[in-house]
Amino acid sequence: MAKTNSFSIAAAKKAAGEEAAKWVRSDMVIGLGTGSTTAYFIEALGRRCREENLNIRAVASSLESQRKAEEQGIPLQSEQSILTLDLTVDGADEIDPQKNMIKGGGGALLREKLLASCSQQMIVIVDENKVVQHLGAFPVPVEISPFVYLTTIRRLENQGYQGKLRIKQDQTPYVTDNGHYIFDVSFNRVIDRPKEEHEKLRLITGVLETGLFFHLATRVIIGYSDGFVKIQT
Amino acid sequence: MAKTNSFSIAAAKKAAGEEAAKWVRSDMVIGLGTGSTTAYFIEALGRRCREENLNIRAVASSLESQRKAEEQGIPLQSEQSILTLDLTVDGADEIDPQKNMIKGGGGALLREKLLASCSQQMIVIVDENKVVQHLGAFPVPVEISPFVYLTTIRRLENQGYQGKLRIKQDQTPYVTDNGHYIFDVSFNRVIDRPKEEHEKLRLITGVLETGLFFHLATRVIIGYSDGFVKIQT
Repeated sequence: MAKTNSFSIAAAKKAAGEEAAKWVRSDMVIGLGTGSTTAYFIEALGRRCREENLNIRAVASSLESQRKAEEQGIPLQSEQSILTLDLTVDGADEIDPQKNMIKGGGGALLREKLLASCSQQMIVIVDENKVVQHLGAFPVPVEISPFVYLTTIRRLENQGYQGKLRIKQDQTPYVTDNGHYIFDVSFNRVIDRPKEEHEKLRLITGVLETGLFFHLATRVIIGYSDGFVKIQT
Repeated sequence: MAKTNSFSIAAAKKAAGEEAAKWVRSDMVIGLGTGSTTAYFIEALGRRCREENLNIRAVASSLESQRKAEEQGIPLQSEQSILTLDLTVDGADEIDPQKNMIKGGGGALLREKLLASCSQQMIVIVDENKVVQHLGAFPVPVEISPFVYLTTIRRLENQGYQGKLRIKQDQTPYVTDNGHYIFDVSFNRVIDRPKEEHEKLRLITGVLETGLFFHLATRVIIGYSDGFVKIQT
């Protein structure tokens, strides 16, 4: 693998984000993911809206992406009226050749999964470093109810899931846009069957969503530090 | 079945609630359910605290039950510090001979299930009208994320679950203490396998909890309109 520094990683993310913006057509309703790669997509999409008079509406998976879209002048639609989306564009923390993913490093996993799940298409945009043979090195974020959360963590640990409650710099729990906590599960092993692992986690009382995504991505755009992209369908 | 009016139903609920209060011992940490039967339990428990100097602490499954406990002078413990409970006492909307239940008519299903799940024991208190041979006549409350909630309802309907979003008198959605919505699923048939049905529902993206409870009740106290109770272990 080529050596990458933060400058070239930024170039790779930007390449993927800008390529994804080319796939948007007028009259689409677009789901906006969250994260640094998606931020490049939102920027490029805003440029197309202004320069090409592209007529779209968007729904954001986080307050962060909502702000970025507003800065770019992208028209937003109330999420409460959404029945279906034409396309969602989002990043990933890890993606394997079967398009299974670990997502939610940015904390927006529940809303990201909800948008992807109601989209006709999902384009995943990643820099080359996110592409893996097998999931498992990146911790899997698990969204949990804050109510008696220590008992949910104990249930997770009793089922063999070691991890850490995500905390902020001030040492208080990180709170998602939905008002929930995140427990980052360290697998430290290959996740052979992401769907089975997701279902096992998801059925634990207090677990509201997991960062394991599958059967959602329709296309993957991989950006490289030299500015090239590879598209996988 | 004996004819019951609202007066005798109240007597049956009161009998069950007061019986449950007898099972509390000093130094227990108690989970408080939610609903009209549980309210009788909280009242009787408060009386024991005052008259017998019973030294307990409690955690409430709803703001409603928290207020009732405060009125009764029952000492409350912060739910954020809870690792385990000695006993949870709660009602049910339907309970079958295997102690499978439908709960959450009062909207507190997620917190009720979280408390029951970390309790050494769970005593379920019901009036005789809640006892059924098979679950399924009462709608099963399903707690869902409010974010793009129409898409979650569509997924539920696509899987064959017909129901209604719970709304308030002002026609806006009912919001749980956790900030979520409730979709009341009408089965209109016997629910043969509550666990399988729960798991199927629970794995639908956007579904955060269901009102199907199983493997949780350790004892059932059934109150009758003549003031008698029957205890099932």
